[in-house]
Amino acid sequence: MPERLVVVGGNAGAMGAASQAKRLRPELEVVAFERGSRTSYAACGIPFFVGHEIDSLDRLVARSPEEHRERGIDARLRHEVIGIDLVARRIVARDLDAGREVEVGFDELVIGTGARALRPPLPGIDLPFVRGVATLDDAAALLREAERVRCDRLVVVGGGYIGLEMVEAFKRWGAEATVLDSAPQVMRTLDADVAQLVADAMKKLSIEVRLDVEVTGFEPGQVLTAEGSVGADLVVLGLGVTPNSELARDAGIELGARNAVKVDDHQRTSAAGVWSAGDCCDSFHRVTKQRVHIALGTVANRQARVAGINIGGGDASFPGVIGTAVTRVCGTEIGRTGLNEVEANEAGIDSRSACIESTTRASYYPGAAPITVKMLVEDSTGRVIGGQIVGGAGSAKRIDTIAAAIWNEMTAEEVVNLDLSYAPPFSPVWDPVQTAARKLV
Amino acid sequence: MPERLVVVGGNAGAMGAASQAKRLRPELEVVAFERGSRTSYAACGIPFFVGHEIDSLDRLVARSPEEHRERGIDARLRHEVIGIDLVARRIVARDLDAGREVEVGFDELVIGTGARALRPPLPGIDLPFVRGVATLDDAAALLREAERVRCDRLVVVGGGYIGLEMVEAFKRWGAEATVLDSAPQVMRTLDADVAQLVADAMKKLSIEVRLDVEVTGFEPGQVLTAEGSVGADLVVLGLGVTPNSELARDAGIELGARNAVKVDDHQRTSAAGVWSAGDCCDSFHRVTKQRVHIALGTVANRQARVAGINIGGGDASFPGVIGTAVTRVCGTEIGRTGLNEVEANEAGIDSRSACIESTTRASYYPGAAPITVKMLVEDSTGRVIGGQIVGGAGSAKRIDTIAAAIWNEMTAEEVVNLDLSYAPPFSPVWDPVQTAARKLV
Repeated sequence: MPERLVVVGGNAGAMGAASQAKRLRPELEVVAFERGSRTSYAACGIPFFVGHEIDSLDRLVARSPEEHRERGIDARLRHEVIGIDLVARRIVARDLDAGREVEVGFDELVIGTGARALRPPLPGIDLPFVRGVATLDDAAALLREAERVRCDRLVVVGGGYIGLEMVEAFKRWGAEATVLDSAPQVMRTLDADVAQLVADAMKKLSIEVRLDVEVTGFEPGQVLTAEGSVGADLVVLGLGVTPNSELARDAGIELGARNAVKVDDHQRTSAAGVWSAGDCCDSFHRVTKQRVHIALGTVANRQARVAGINIGGGDASFPGVIGTAVTRVCGTEIGRTGLNEVEANEAGIDSRSACIESTTRASYYPGAAPITVKMLVEDSTGRVIGGQIVGGAGSAKRIDTIAAAIWNEMTAEEVVNLDLSYAPPFSPVWDPVQTAARKLV
Repeated sequence: MPERLVVVGGNAGAMGAASQAKRLRPELEVVAFERGSRTSYAACGIPFFVGHEIDSLDRLVARSPEEHRERGIDARLRHEVIGIDLVARRIVARDLDAGREVEVGFDELVIGTGARALRPPLPGIDLPFVRGVATLDDAAALLREAERVRCDRLVVVGGGYIGLEMVEAFKRWGAEATVLDSAPQVMRTLDADVAQLVADAMKKLSIEVRLDVEVTGFEPGQVLTAEGSVGADLVVLGLGVTPNSELARDAGIELGARNAVKVDDHQRTSAAGVWSAGDCCDSFHRVTKQRVHIALGTVANRQARVAGINIGGGDASFPGVIGTAVTRVCGTEIGRTGLNEVEANEAGIDSRSACIESTTRASYYPGAAPITVKMLVEDSTGRVIGGQIVGGAGSAKRIDTIAAAIWNEMTAEEVVNLDLSYAPPFSPVWDPVQTAARKLV
């Protein structure tokens, strides 16, 4: 009898592992349970769907349930796994439409349950105009609600990636947008000086950015704060995410950073034959050497590949993350990688930094846009440990060069000499990344 | 009495070294001789001047002679150094306007004489409609000639970077353009399969690309080939460059790769107290471990910095090159780094490669353009040794990621796991560079 792999979750972490394992071991029986109505989709595309840049949620689906089935994966939608029995080696799932429970045994199990938007227990948080956006089903519901109320006034609570991307989406509707953040800056993954550039760019586009504002609750049409209420047709929560790890925890599987499922470098959980990948599990941070929870599609896909190779009989390890991310808010590109100053302090790493201004193309070349690059090095070794970029078109993807430098423990001097590409339509002769590095030599 | 530094040449290699040395040793007396009429300019910008994307050659000047003088560098234009006496430690220069010679002693000397366009000894090569473009003075003369003859038919001899950029420039004029290349492909820095994509893109824009065609000479209005003549109002030579190293050679200074001035990793020539940087000198190739001559502005600037630090009393070394370059031809972006298949063979490195097609943005995101990435790894170690990219907007600068991977001797498996950035407007979740790497694991 062939072994059976059960995967819990229908997105990148779970289905990526399942697909990879099935490719390597075609005889494996694979059953996947997804509580929503779609599989293998790009949640990162949601803001662009809401902003009407993409006309259909189906375009965000990389592989449909039918396509998974054609590849020999029995993908069951609208099935929520509600229990894992590690002794009997079986899961219990609820068929949400039929209202009954099913039990399925497994030899190997992948937990890929993802993460959900944080919803602090504030009065009124469950009012229908207060929305999170983590799944395509969330996105469809959000858009329906926005159209129903003819959203003219959007309030985003929390100025992180998702929040700011939703601001951009609603600006495309012509809605007024306000960002409320309890911190003294937006985008806490950036240092305050760099985040200020983002806030400035938003203000130039008539987006209201209110910092140091604590939201205390919601009433229909109103966001309540310590400083009075703010009118809103719709509220989007952008307060970050928390891993869906309760199922694993209740089964007795160990949790790690920020209550994410704890995994080793092979994506093994604490339970034999049980693996985890994606937004529900933790990762090793290569700079701080600590376990972290970073919910990003890139990380999920890489972890899923590693888990799948190992389930498939290979031997792969996941070397960790450094927190690389990019986004675009109202035409301003933003990239970051490694540690910012706050994170370096918290990790006990003495750092120094340089922040430079340059242009995305040769300064004389048409379309050259301003770009700001901040780079951090470890003081004692000169090794690059962090980078932040804000600028016009062509800025953000340069963060990959800094990411590669951090990954390889390059010093600023090495980055200065790195053989990067140059032609006037693409860069000044010293790439802005190198101009920043030159300040740190 | 302060020491005197003499630099021969007014562009990146020479003036970069002079500026860096002067910053570190302000007491240094610095005299610079440039036979042309400008200093410190971006020759890479010439095609964009010819194509009217940049309205004035002065915009390509990063630092004028006056600005150099304000920084304490005695920059003498229209002075051609015609002899170096290493024993008496002085140079002889000809003042091209006054027609007389001057002698200046030196303690330290930088040779930054650059390179010139190759002009094979063909009949008619000195006709005024046959032009090279290496200096801003060349560019000004070329544009005057093109306007005088009202260039409707451009022929470029040699399908390398400069040749193809000049094609783009003249297409902007509305001229017909023909590229003649003696090789069976354009862009010999790319493999034939990747170069074919460039040729295809050019043909789509009605640029005639004729390969395997040997040019035998020139007559007024005609380029002569073994297969008949081709009408031309103007001919641009794009056959590569050769270092201006005769001055050094005649002084008894050792030459290295392709007759470029031989330097060590501190940019020292074979003569004590004589340094060289830029297009006139050679470099160490980090993959082949051989000396090479690569004439690029990026390399010149980095070498100049190293030379200047050493002259200024510091201790810097230049770790070498890997041949990273980008360009854009008629909307198609092209990047390359490391070794291509031919170069790997020549270097005796067993390699294997993968060539993948992906998109510059998430496939569902508006503006996603095709991108082709070819990656080479050393067969025995799996280390990345080369990369080539051709595609739409947002393609070329990704070559920097491959460059960083080669620089750090990463394997394809490490590249797959590298924490690169992703958001739908910038990339698929697996960056195309990683998709190529996945094929090589």
